[in-house]
Amino acid sequence: MSRPRLLLLSSSVVHGHGFLEYAASDINTFLNKNRVSTVLFVPYAAVDHDAYLAKVRPVFTKWGYQVEGIHQDNPVDAVKRAEAIFVGGGNTFLLLKTLYDKNLVKLIRERVFEDGVPYIGSSAGTNIAAPSIHNTNDMPIVYPPSFNALNLIPFNINPHYLDTDPNSTHKGETREERILQYHSLPDAYDVYNVLGLREGSLLLVDGEMGVLKGIKNARLFIKGKPPQEIEVGTDLSHLFANQLKASAVRL
Amino acid sequence: MSRPRLLLLSSSVVHGHGFLEYAASDINTFLNKNRVSTVLFVPYAAVDHDAYLAKVRPVFTKWGYQVEGIHQDNPVDAVKRAEAIFVGGGNTFLLLKTLYDKNLVKLIRERVFEDGVPYIGSSAGTNIAAPSIHNTNDMPIVYPPSFNALNLIPFNINPHYLDTDPNSTHKGETREERILQYHSLPDAYDVYNVLGLREGSLLLVDGEMGVLKGIKNARLFIKGKPPQEIEVGTDLSHLFANQLKASAVRL
Ligand SMILES: [Ca+2]
Ligand SMILES: [Ca+2]
Repeated sequence: MSRPRLLLLSSSVVHGHGFLEYAASDINTFLNKNRVSTVLFVPYAAVDHDAYLAKVRPVFTKWGYQVEGIHQDNPVDAVKRAEAIFVGGGNTFLLLKTLYDKNLVKLIRERVFEDGVPYIGSSAGTNIAAPSIHNTNDMPIVYPPSFNALNLIPFNINPHYLDTDPNSTHKGETREERILQYHSLPDAYDVYNVLGLREGSLLLVDGEMGVLKGIKNARLFIKGKPPQEIEVGTDLSHLFANQLKASAVRL
Repeated sequence: MSRPRLLLLSSSVVHGHGFLEYAASDINTFLNKNRVSTVLFVPYAAVDHDAYLAKVRPVFTKWGYQVEGIHQDNPVDAVKRAEAIFVGGGNTFLLLKTLYDKNLVKLIRERVFEDGVPYIGSSAGTNIAAPSIHNTNDMPIVYPPSFNALNLIPFNINPHYLDTDPNSTHKGETREERILQYHSLPDAYDVYNVLGLREGSLLLVDGEMGVLKGIKNARLFIKGKPPQEIEVGTDLSHLFANQLKASAVRL
């Protein structure tokens, strides 16, 4: 048993910044600290895996890391030997379904929990680090065998969190309404707390220690309480207390 | 075997109009033509069924119709004797899961196809009239046993269709990107054409005849073709040709 080391980004792109640029120093610190030289990239949230790898590889190469694409080899073997895993954004349903189809859900979780393999997620890759994908914004274009996900942390994440636009004339639900409706479900449903990560915010996890990083605040939805603003630098370890072990039992 | 009679609204509320107001004359014409006196309301897309019924009932009462709530009685019996069905908006996943849990999916479809029971849907209620809910905008707060839906028409619907805002700094996918990604899935996936109904647009279906109504244009996504603008009044019967019977076999 090791401890999970995670870096969970709201998105890969933030207005005014290049691909992964706003998170460059956090990613580099995270990988260096864990003595990583090769990153296993998981492009399953997109349809075209080669094109996605071609976009991601130069960024990590520039930083001095090698990048392997999980789709270029037997994916189970690739995860078994991975030094670090980066799961990119795209469609969360397609990503999770593909991980189930290829028998990777339990394996990735084991590598993170038992071997301490550092995990970086962005957007969909961050969604699946949670107990479930119930709080993704994505369109359900494919049907996964479950909404249960990697369960690396004991709460759900809503990436690309968006504040309500007071000038909008659109009548679809706001993001806050959607999350509060999730929390209003009858008790028969398994419901988790939700961390809304605005584009530009990211969560660094080391065991049961969590801290908000990046350039934007987050919004935290604890079931039964009013939503709270979370500033960059805030210690979120209380969200992990007494919960990691219970949830670790589930898989 | 009868023919399906459907009125599928993008939303119940449109900016500047009261609840169902923009569609009042279409709803009244539809119900009068079919000699309906009582409407069975299905509030399963919301958590609080009584509150939802209390919001919907006065609107139909004002128009001269009685409203029964499906949750006030045995739901199977209520559907079996329904003269007309109105399925309201809310969360599409919660709606579809509840219909499956209560064994109503096949039954509603039979009543529409075999007995010609008029069906009105709004938002989530429109989503589930399609072959699948793959193009809902809702958050997947619960896990339904399938994304296959009532299959009353041979194409999917994206309600609350939103145009791309050229001034947005948000990096989440646009609605058009999401639908085009759905259409780019590998051939192994069952993919349907998608009608994007802007708030204020609605689809009137009578057998294999379909026409766009309301106060806003729609956007049509035929797989492999560029998206097309559809003006109010456009005959969409070509979308039904040779497809209703094939899809009718599925359930
Ligand atoms: Ca996405
Ligand atoms: Ca909705």
